[in-house]
Amino acid sequence: MGTTTRHRILEEAARLFTERGYEATSVQDLAEALGLSKAALYHHFRSKEEVLYEISRQALEGLLEEAKKALAVSDPREALLRFMEGHARFFEENRPFFVTMLQGLQSLSPEKQAPILALRDQYEEALRTLLRRGMEAGVFRQLDVALTGRAILSMLNWMIRWFRPGGPLRAEEVARWYYHLLLRGLEDGDT
Amino acid sequence: MGTTTRHRILEEAARLFTERGYEATSVQDLAEALGLSKAALYHHFRSKEEVLYEISRQALEGLLEEAKKALAVSDPREALLRFMEGHARFFEENRPFFVTMLQGLQSLSPEKQAPILALRDQYEEALRTLLRRGMEAGVFRQLDVALTGRAILSMLNWMIRWFRPGGPLRAEEVARWYYHLLLRGLEDGDT
Repeated sequence: MGTTTRHRILEEAARLFTERGYEATSVQDLAEALGLSKAALYHHFRSKEEVLYEISRQALEGLLEEAKKALAVSDPREALLRFMEGHARFFEENRPFFVTMLQGLQSLSPEKQAPILALRDQYEEALRTLLRRGMEAGVFRQLDVALTGRAILSMLNWMIRWFRPGGPLRAEEVARWYYHLLLRGLEDGDT
Repeated sequence: MGTTTRHRILEEAARLFTERGYEATSVQDLAEALGLSKAALYHHFRSKEEVLYEISRQALEGLLEEAKKALAVSDPREALLRFMEGHARFFEENRPFFVTMLQGLQSLSPEKQAPILALRDQYEEALRTLLRRGMEAGVFRQLDVALTGRAILSMLNWMIRWFRPGGPLRAEEVARWYYHLLLRGLEDGDT
């Protein structure tokens, strides 16, 4: 039961932080939305910041799990496609956690921000590893992996600004489409 | 002088909205930061929303001017490069206006949002026109122009989240790098 309430708090908090913003959501708002007393809430989390920290940590751990599946694929093209699809699927299925993680970073104190940044760096490093492997295999061109990784994550992350569930495309399909655009590029091969 | 004060209000408001957020900035905060009375401020703008509207309008008009320069270039590759560089340069040189425009859209009432959305659509349509021209000329592959345009703007717009002035690269250089990645793609042409 402790675990269940804990999870319910995180889910409701992620929803409120996504809709109203972290700063604009008070512990009182969260307690009311959950039908809990502030005391009950403080029994599970010491502060609003701890709630934000835990949401961010779980989001990045979830993304890292997806990245590990992609890293286990030996074909570099297939591995990159899996990474991009996994990122988009995780976003669509865990939107409030994902958005809270992306938007909440600057609201964390330096001590709580450091482990979150370390997880994020680990995630970005997984993407760079995929890209490096593809370059070493001669499948991808020799490119700056940091900028290439940034370009890929920028395309995917900007989906928080325009993607609406229930639209014509699933997030994963958008990711697949972006993958094909990135792989072959814009230029017509015949010219 | 009216024009000067008006512009000074917009500049200070864009700075505050970017730093603290639109909702968290009051007319009182803005008046204090400017050393003006609220009455003096209301002499120039009827409401905080009107200030947000005017910042957003000016940002999009500025971007549209850049887009028109790109549309005037006949070579499709060169035109796309100009568009992307223009977008990034405008962002770097007018960061508070650019960020306020991107982040403030949902804070506008429907009546004020409509003309801003129309300008944004016009801007996105300019990019699609560039892409269509390149496809018709056989320079670019036949691709979904809406998704391609979205991919390009996503990469560029995500710079608001990571790009820091004074870093190793100018925003325009990042845009040029992204252009080259997009044009040729990731895949090694020899495989």
